[in-house]
Amino acid sequence: MKIFLTNDDGIGAPGLAALAKSVAMLGEVFIAAPATEMSAVGHAITLSDPLKVKEYFKNGVFFGYAVNGTPADCVKIAYWALLKDQPKPDLLISGINLGSNTGINTIYSGTVSAATEGAILGIPSFAISLATFTKPDFSAAADFTQKLIPLLLAKPLPRGVFLNVNVPAVPAGEIRGVQITRQGLANYSEDYHVRTDPRNTNYYWLTGEKMDIEADETVDDRAIIDNKISITPVHYDLTHYPTLQELKKWKFNQES
Amino acid sequence: MKIFLTNDDGIGAPGLAALAKSVAMLGEVFIAAPATEMSAVGHAITLSDPLKVKEYFKNGVFFGYAVNGTPADCVKIAYWALLKDQPKPDLLISGINLGSNTGINTIYSGTVSAATEGAILGIPSFAISLATFTKPDFSAAADFTQKLIPLLLAKPLPRGVFLNVNVPAVPAGEIRGVQITRQGLANYSEDYHVRTDPRNTNYYWLTGEKMDIEADETVDDRAIIDNKISITPVHYDLTHYPTLQELKKWKFNQES
Repeated sequence: MKIFLTNDDGIGAPGLAALAKSVAMLGEVFIAAPATEMSAVGHAITLSDPLKVKEYFKNGVFFGYAVNGTPADCVKIAYWALLKDQPKPDLLISGINLGSNTGINTIYSGTVSAATEGAILGIPSFAISLATFTKPDFSAAADFTQKLIPLLLAKPLPRGVFLNVNVPAVPAGEIRGVQITRQGLANYSEDYHVRTDPRNTNYYWLTGEKMDIEADETVDDRAIIDNKISITPVHYDLTHYPTLQELKKWKFNQES
Repeated sequence: MKIFLTNDDGIGAPGLAALAKSVAMLGEVFIAAPATEMSAVGHAITLSDPLKVKEYFKNGVFFGYAVNGTPADCVKIAYWALLKDQPKPDLLISGINLGSNTGINTIYSGTVSAATEGAILGIPSFAISLATFTKPDFSAAADFTQKLIPLLLAKPLPRGVFLNVNVPAVPAGEIRGVQITRQGLANYSEDYHVRTDPRNTNYYWLTGEKMDIEADETVDDRAIIDNKISITPVHYDLTHYPTLQELKKWKFNQES
């Protein structure tokens, strides 16, 4: 089994190292990840610049390919170029991300976008994130990865569907099981902190916090608050089908 | 009525100028757009760098705000900072983009991501794109914008839903009406062209083409091929609900 690992925190991130360690015994590990941190890069691909790929070593041992692009770029270039005439991955895992990718953040997440690319290519895929930015302990997320892989391979998801997994940042013994969830839709209240540079130009730093997280235990953000591992099945067909039926009633063509 | 315009081709793009002209008589126009071209930037937001905002003039007349960020950044900073204590927009339009944003490209589109941000903020929103990269004539798209606005304002869409509009690049008389569509799911066959720089390092340019576009006339890509204006209702809840039910049968918690 060939397992493709990537992330958006960059190839040197400890979450990727923890992930690589947790799956090393399960198969051949192939890594292609951004050369530098790419958080909140969304589902970007690089068209206007070329990509460069460098071999990345840890303690003198080859670890993977560092790509000067986004997580989506890493998946694309690995599949179509680096693995061009080789067997394709049987599984793609993106993470372990530092910080949760729940609720509306799902749409900004480079971690999730890499798993989306895996799903587009027909590879069983999941994104996994740890809900903390400080003093991360990746062991619970790494352990859960080992548990999830056989389940995912035993029961293939529909084409184009993948999993977005988030793990609460508590000791393993305090995790209250797994909750199957939907993406929360709570908005952020954003605030831009204005500063002035030495040339008297204003610049703005984005800050903000989620407001009114849904109380429903089946919402991803709520599962994390409840110390549960959240698993949301995600796809990339953005069509809102109920509205599609409604729009057919609009009088476009008569008026033209 | 305050109409917020943005795009991903940059504040100097002719598609934005055509859009601004087409809506000028309908209300107060407010523009905040990327300072430079931001195509295929996806739904990125800028967290690691501050945003700068400059007033942008055309022929000595104030046109709008140029932001050194992504389309999503432009919407956020306009709503939360530039318009902080002012009435919020009644309508958001992103475009007119040079090049279609149909099928799987929807998920990489900065143009669409700006409309997503509008929908997140509860503003009636649409993205509009012209399906050509060469010799663009924005007049049919601009005319259709004028037709769409009263329909959209008369029949509010559900919270979080917005429209992704694509216009074929043919003379207005050859457009065969409007088709309500779903997002196509045809994949790309990607190819990376490898070059070698003067220092003997390989670099890769992404190229590719869509394969097997669905024959179904209700698919956005097909509507464009059929010379129809395509309107896809889009939302940002990525949850795949059918799989959610299926996942509940997986044996996670028994094994922990």
